[in-house]
Amino acid sequence: MISRILAADLPAHVGDRVRLAGWLHRRRELKSVSFLVIRDRSALAQIVLRRPVHLAEETVVEVTGTVAANPQAPGGAELVDPVIDVLSEPVQPPPFDLYRPVVSGALPTILDHAPVALRHPRLRAPFEIAAAGVAGFRAALDGLGFVETSTPKIVGSATESGANVFGIDYFGRPAFLAQSPQFFKQTLVGVFERVYEVGPVFRAEPHDTARHLAQYTSLDAELGFIHDHRDVMAVLTRALAGMHAAVAERAVNAVALLGIDVPKVPEEIPAIDFTEAQDLLARHTGEDPRGEPDLAPAHERRLGEWALREHGSEFLFVTGYPMVKRPFYTHPDPARPAYSRSFDLLFRGLELVTGGQRLHRHADYLAALAERGEDPRAYQGYLAAFAHGMPPHGGFAIGLERWTSRVTGAANVRQTTLFPRDLHRLTP
Amino acid sequence: MISRILAADLPAHVGDRVRLAGWLHRRRELKSVSFLVIRDRSALAQIVLRRPVHLAEETVVEVTGTVAANPQAPGGAELVDPVIDVLSEPVQPPPFDLYRPVVSGALPTILDHAPVALRHPRLRAPFEIAAAGVAGFRAALDGLGFVETSTPKIVGSATESGANVFGIDYFGRPAFLAQSPQFFKQTLVGVFERVYEVGPVFRAEPHDTARHLAQYTSLDAELGFIHDHRDVMAVLTRALAGMHAAVAERAVNAVALLGIDVPKVPEEIPAIDFTEAQDLLARHTGEDPRGEPDLAPAHERRLGEWALREHGSEFLFVTGYPMVKRPFYTHPDPARPAYSRSFDLLFRGLELVTGGQRLHRHADYLAALAERGEDPRAYQGYLAAFAHGMPPHGGFAIGLERWTSRVTGAANVRQTTLFPRDLHRLTP
Repeated sequence: MISRILAADLPAHVGDRVRLAGWLHRRRELKSVSFLVIRDRSALAQIVLRRPVHLAEETVVEVTGTVAANPQAPGGAELVDPVIDVLSEPVQPPPFDLYRPVVSGALPTILDHAPVALRHPRLRAPFEIAAAGVAGFRAALDGLGFVETSTPKIVGSATESGANVFGIDYFGRPAFLAQSPQFFKQTLVGVFERVYEVGPVFRAEPHDTARHLAQYTSLDAELGFIHDHRDVMAVLTRALAGMHAAVAERAVNAVALLGIDVPKVPEEIPAIDFTEAQDLLARHTGEDPRGEPDLAPAHERRLGEWALREHGSEFLFVTGYPMVKRPFYTHPDPARPAYSRSFDLLFRGLELVTGGQRLHRHADYLAALAERGEDPRAYQGYLAAFAHGMPPHGGFAIGLERWTSRVTGAANVRQTTLFPRDLHRLTP
Repeated sequence: MISRILAADLPAHVGDRVRLAGWLHRRRELKSVSFLVIRDRSALAQIVLRRPVHLAEETVVEVTGTVAANPQAPGGAELVDPVIDVLSEPVQPPPFDLYRPVVSGALPTILDHAPVALRHPRLRAPFEIAAAGVAGFRAALDGLGFVETSTPKIVGSATESGANVFGIDYFGRPAFLAQSPQFFKQTLVGVFERVYEVGPVFRAEPHDTARHLAQYTSLDAELGFIHDHRDVMAVLTRALAGMHAAVAERAVNAVALLGIDVPKVPEEIPAIDFTEAQDLLARHTGEDPRGEPDLAPAHERRLGEWALREHGSEFLFVTGYPMVKRPFYTHPDPARPAYSRSFDLLFRGLELVTGGQRLHRHADYLAALAERGEDPRAYQGYLAAFAHGMPPHGGFAIGLERWTSRVTGAANVRQTTLFPRDLHRLTP
């Protein structure tokens, strides 16, 4: 048997007898000729027949035929004199036409029918971009001496933020799904100095928004022997640059299909201090946010516009958030202890990444927990790392689906999640 | 300030003034000289002082000094005339000496103290090998046109095997932790044709063995448009070859430290049919396993020895297991329907990978479920993929921690898991 070629490679085989395999994407019957469009993982290919065929869309076929040049066919070549073998037949039609350029269904319908809806080239494309982004993230950090790790998703106490955790029955004992690998990645700085993890995190998010999911993929990194949070920002910049470069290189078809612009990450991302950002907002908007402990989404949008206008950058670091809005392990700024050595990264006016320097001295952890009225015994495994000597360190976490949404322009993070889980959705 | 160099780079800087940073690994006071050994992520480095120092092991330090050649020092160079800055101090000593070549503690003690025990170079090394292996797995499959995916770990029904699932309270509804991405990866063959996922899987394993964990990392792959299970075996061979090549390339120090032999994966791994394997065992052992539906661990060991002796291979495929011991989605061998198009891969006489061809026709799924007395409504999302046309496909899953155990010679899979979870262990 002739070995299979992909639809995208058809133009290189003009004159050859070849075999394609894929799904019947579309069928058009004219008076004396029929056209079949076959979809495989690479592209679409047109098949020309001199007789009608009675196959439903999504039939899985193998087609052996001769490649002929045709400027009007997708890719500039088509298959003529075909022999068609049916590998399997659908038992029902798709809930909407997969061959139309844009899907007609509403988002809930699309999500309910994800197993077939995701076959639509435009709905599939964001996931090719996500895969490329993750590969770029890893390549950048591998090049900086990081070690990839896998840490437990089942934990014994709901310590990091308390609220919004999923409870598990763990052999008759209560346990919880990890909200982040935060404690583990810090602990592992004591082992490997530089670690990253790409894995699921879980939030029992009670709000039904376009930005929140019960499970998402977190790209976590943590590194030791830093001077302050700016060393973390430099590594994040390299990681993001790797992600965007990998998309440009590895997801060419998906980027072209969606017609999106994937911005290059600047060598140095502009940064503004939290209090300066508030001053700027007070000067340029009707409101005065000074004194507030955090930025509202509208303020983040304004800052994003400012960064684009003033610095030509779609990215902006906001540094030095008030300690009061940051988790207990956050390192304060020694010069102004009410503010932290932390940052958010805004991408197109939306928070994409949170990070910063962490405390590293055992006594500082005991003091920070005491100040929040927390029992250190609930943090025993975590505190052990600090009891045995830890370097100054920090890190960050990127939400993969949120990044993909921003890059692709998706309005809802569910469009960049293969089978989203939320307050209402537990299937498919 | 002079920028930091790594201990491994010391020999390239003889005569220079440099800065090291790391943990005080060991301290030795002689009459007129003190030696400090500093451990960083790359290696150990010796520091020579003309006066005693009073620092505890695991103190985190920066040391600026002049590099001097000394054939007796680790790496052939040491630091003299040092200035030592303490970055942080431990508040208690490690539970066992980290500087001894072999850890003296028993496994439970080591696991209880994982945050500090993992700093021991020999205990850390398996995870550097695991990280290299995963990188090699991805590189091999990326090169074959696979797309990396992230799928839900929270599922609505405990369908794949029924037993040994962890229950979750999902916003007041019962849900379960996914035992594998099996259904999702098959569904996604309909979208991407070739997919893989590296992620956690969960088994409420009630047995306390050296091989089973409540959470482990599964390297899952699935591919469409195959002829039969042998196409899957060919891809698995490539993936494993990528893993072993990446260890040899990226984990040189860890391999040397453990003194292990990482076998090259042969171009073609020898394969034996299940019934032939039973015949072979009957001829060469006192027992007669013919008629049994599976191989006992002792039989797998014997077959591993046979493959090494007859084929010079540490790997052996056993193909064509009886259908009765395989999951409902397994594709039968059309020529002998009581046997399957499935395989196990033995590595050093132990099962490392399970895989095979799956059913792909909707009607075949309905028949397989009916035969097992299962309600197809519990499989609605999964069956949707087959209702819309699926190609012949198959795949496999490798347990990362089990693979790392085999490669490193670890007796217990907990030695190759960062923070293992089992029947008794939920911390650290």
